[in-house]
Amino acid sequence: MSQYKAMTNETVTNYLKEIKIFPQEHKLVSKEVGDGNLNLVFRVKDLDTNKTVIVKQALPYLRVAGEGWKLTLDRNRIESEAMKIQNEICSNSVPHVYHHSDTYALTVMEDLGDMETLRKGLMSMKRFPNFPAQIGNFLAKNLFFSSDIGMSPMGKKKVVAKFISPELCDITEKLVLNDPYTNSESNNVNPHIKEDVKKLWANENVYLETAKLKNIFMTKAEALLHGDLHTGSIFINQDKSIIFDAEFAFYGPYGYDIGLLFANFILNYVSWEGRNDKNKEEIKDYRQYLLNSIEDIWNEFKKNFDDIWDKNSKDIITKVPGYKEVYIENLLHETIGFCSCEIMRRIIGMAHVPDLDEIEDLHERAKAQKLGLKIGQTILLKRNKLNSIEEFTKLIMNS
Amino acid sequence: MSQYKAMTNETVTNYLKEIKIFPQEHKLVSKEVGDGNLNLVFRVKDLDTNKTVIVKQALPYLRVAGEGWKLTLDRNRIESEAMKIQNEICSNSVPHVYHHSDTYALTVMEDLGDMETLRKGLMSMKRFPNFPAQIGNFLAKNLFFSSDIGMSPMGKKKVVAKFISPELCDITEKLVLNDPYTNSESNNVNPHIKEDVKKLWANENVYLETAKLKNIFMTKAEALLHGDLHTGSIFINQDKSIIFDAEFAFYGPYGYDIGLLFANFILNYVSWEGRNDKNKEEIKDYRQYLLNSIEDIWNEFKKNFDDIWDKNSKDIITKVPGYKEVYIENLLHETIGFCSCEIMRRIIGMAHVPDLDEIEDLHERAKAQKLGLKIGQTILLKRNKLNSIEEFTKLIMNS
Repeated sequence: MSQYKAMTNETVTNYLKEIKIFPQEHKLVSKEVGDGNLNLVFRVKDLDTNKTVIVKQALPYLRVAGEGWKLTLDRNRIESEAMKIQNEICSNSVPHVYHHSDTYALTVMEDLGDMETLRKGLMSMKRFPNFPAQIGNFLAKNLFFSSDIGMSPMGKKKVVAKFISPELCDITEKLVLNDPYTNSESNNVNPHIKEDVKKLWANENVYLETAKLKNIFMTKAEALLHGDLHTGSIFINQDKSIIFDAEFAFYGPYGYDIGLLFANFILNYVSWEGRNDKNKEEIKDYRQYLLNSIEDIWNEFKKNFDDIWDKNSKDIITKVPGYKEVYIENLLHETIGFCSCEIMRRIIGMAHVPDLDEIEDLHERAKAQKLGLKIGQTILLKRNKLNSIEEFTKLIMNS
Repeated sequence: MSQYKAMTNETVTNYLKEIKIFPQEHKLVSKEVGDGNLNLVFRVKDLDTNKTVIVKQALPYLRVAGEGWKLTLDRNRIESEAMKIQNEICSNSVPHVYHHSDTYALTVMEDLGDMETLRKGLMSMKRFPNFPAQIGNFLAKNLFFSSDIGMSPMGKKKVVAKFISPELCDITEKLVLNDPYTNSESNNVNPHIKEDVKKLWANENVYLETAKLKNIFMTKAEALLHGDLHTGSIFINQDKSIIFDAEFAFYGPYGYDIGLLFANFILNYVSWEGRNDKNKEEIKDYRQYLLNSIEDIWNEFKKNFDDIWDKNSKDIITKVPGYKEVYIENLLHETIGFCSCEIMRRIIGMAHVPDLDEIEDLHERAKAQKLGLKIGQTILLKRNKLNSIEEFTKLIMNS
């Protein structure tokens, strides 16, 4: 049996011919296009047909850290299996998987390279009026059909074991749910917000509430999460949205996925605080669009979820009067909780977002970050009193 | 490789010699002593040494239902692995495992046959003053050392997959958390409590609260549960307590284990309502002993848990100010919730308890059952307002 080795532009083209993705006699050209720290990503083009594919291969270590920080290759299997399930549950929502190899920790998939990420779109003030309906549908189907209520409790339990992912969850637990709330080595704080961050660290309620959320993250196997559903994990144009990069997939609390998505809209929302290249009216208007998007996403999600719940239940629990309402209310509270953590960690923690990082002047960036910390703490502490998505967006607007 | 076959008194003795539990030349005698529906249980004695062992073998079907209701043999592996972990975590708390075979779905273990079950002891008004300290220690260590906080989140996730048990959980979900709260075929209701049960079925709050608990049961992978910790799963004498029959073990909410135990004390408590063979003073006194035991178990659990939490933490979450208190309060609420379900299902559902079944006069039994249903509903609906074990026992006494 072959052994894992990291691919190069040369070996990857040979490999694709070997597994018959492309014919032996065609001329292929490969380019490494990855910008992450965890994986090699090759775009390979068949010059005879102009057809392209993406090859994503897991590296056995974090690239930033040299070869020091080892990381399981199994995440590539998890990602490919998650993509297959997501495509079954919600067709054409994720890139098609053409091939996966456990040995090489490598997946060959559909190339969507002509699409831009939602993050880039938001950073240039673009609007995507179809996105809420598209993602609302995706979120509703994924939650429902990967959970006890949509798969039956027996069916779900059999799948949970395939997605146990201790090392990737450990990264999230550390970088999203632990370190940002205390003075930890991994943090990366703009010197001009030091005082605000120190106040946050001194707030025991913030620490306690994030601990509760971490416990939910560690123990609640509700549905198959994407696990890292920020705006950079979504390809978009005016017609469609495609979710990618599911290597953090695992069975967790679904509010984590929805919360991350909302947080990245809010991080874009606060970024305009530090930008002088747009006029105030334009900013106000775009921010309203962002908040409307959050409302629309939730309402589309809810409408779809409601509908599937009534029609496709595999468990009698869905028939209990009042249970659906309790379930959705609790999901909203957990969503807001995880949303808050993602906002705070993208400002205090190790990994920031381009929406804020592109503000080069650290004083200007600090203005945006301070607003982010204010919103993050406010929604964290008030989340369990918020009973609708509109109360949530209002709270953001008034922060 | 050999294939599974159900053992007989003859084949089991040969098997024990083959695997060298007993010497080839010794004379063995075996007796099938099982009274369950799921397993064969042999007590095998070496007549040369008088040493005995227990052999427990899973049957591939439910015995009551003929060979119609199939049930995974994997539960025997789960039970043997759970016992090994329980013995590592809390030594001498469960029978020692001498041998396990996946092929035969069979475990050879220590014989504790000279001990009686706690249920039998309570049914004859015996008192076990050392039990709260023993079981409190067991519960605290099991919860802590099989959870994220005692194993580290990475360590725990690696173990969770070994204990995924769809079919056994399905039995619990159906018979404990679903059927008793509606007019289901599987129920078994004393005709003299029909009106009370109908009222319970008509109470939408009861149905909603049990649905919430079922959701917690299905999704919360908190710690390695015993999964069926009633008073018949505990061997006891004045010196020691030994927990057995862990085939329902899985990663679930720990309140389920503690709740089941409390419920079976309460089922004994209510049983005296229907018994005329003891005088009132004696009954009052013994009931006080039962409630004191519940308080003592919780307080011993809490004392031990508190102590381990401070000394043995593997996760930083345990250092968050106020988190321990929140954690324990939530555990109490979930404990009371599952306790309530166990009480109600042992009165309405398919499987009753000997404490009540031995009251032959159905009118007399109904008196006890009615009190049980009253207590079950009261604690279910008030659980989240109860902030101490003493408030809980007071509520029972005043029902």
